[in-house]
Amino acid sequence: MAVSGSAVNPVVDKYSVGEGMCPYRLVLEHVTSRWGVLVLIELRERPYRFSELRRAIGRVSEKMLTQTLQTLERDGLVHRDAKPVIPPRVDYSLTDLGREAAEQVLALALWTEQRMDAVEKARRAYDEARS
Amino acid sequence: MAVSGSAVNPVVDKYSVGEGMCPYRLVLEHVTSRWGVLVLIELRERPYRFSELRRAIGRVSEKMLTQTLQTLERDGLVHRDAKPVIPPRVDYSLTDLGREAAEQVLALALWTEQRMDAVEKARRAYDEARS
Repeated sequence: MAVSGSAVNPVVDKYSVGEGMCPYRLVLEHVTSRWGVLVLIELRERPYRFSELRRAIGRVSEKMLTQTLQTLERDGLVHRDAKPVIPPRVDYSLTDLGREAAEQVLALALWTEQRMDAVEKARRAYDEARS
Repeated sequence: MAVSGSAVNPVVDKYSVGEGMCPYRLVLEHVTSRWGVLVLIELRERPYRFSELRRAIGRVSEKMLTQTLQTLERDGLVHRDAKPVIPPRVDYSLTDLGREAAEQVLALALWTEQRMDAVEKARRAYDEARS
């Protein structure tokens, strides 16, 4: 690749070897996945119990939320705290690493949300030019 | 959802209605897609011709790169400039909007890359606790 500035740009350098699946690529996919984004943004506020988190996010199946939380827990972004009580109680919260990820993802999501008007305008122009 | 702070958090508010596919969700997917990330990061440096961009990114098929560029062009992030010369020459560059997107995506990608050690350490601990 060897573009100017790549010396201070490890991402471009990593990608430049043509490896489609650099290790961090998967983490990027986890934190930007449909439910990953929502879990991270939601847990920024406070810890949640599973059922509470599921209600807060809305329209996520139990299975998908479980998988998302397991993936983020394995990546070290979410902490799972199973209390030894009856009935069982499991709390989910962000780790320090997860909090960093959540801030990054929120910034990107907010940018996207704020620029939707411009995106939609561009799409109309694109479609009109081709119809 | 009604979490504290959601009043200043349009993303959470949007998501809180339980719409899995808010309009901006698709844009988020475009800019964080495997090739979308690479195109945006690469074009931060300078405009590229198609074949040049394909070489710079590496291991992307002509079809996938074409689709990625069309999607980003339609979203108003990439500008396609077909010069009326022989042989035909097409340059791709970032629009102002695309430059903003590229900065956001690069920040997230760099964060992910910089924290891979912590993520891998967490994964080992997670896997060991379950083996």
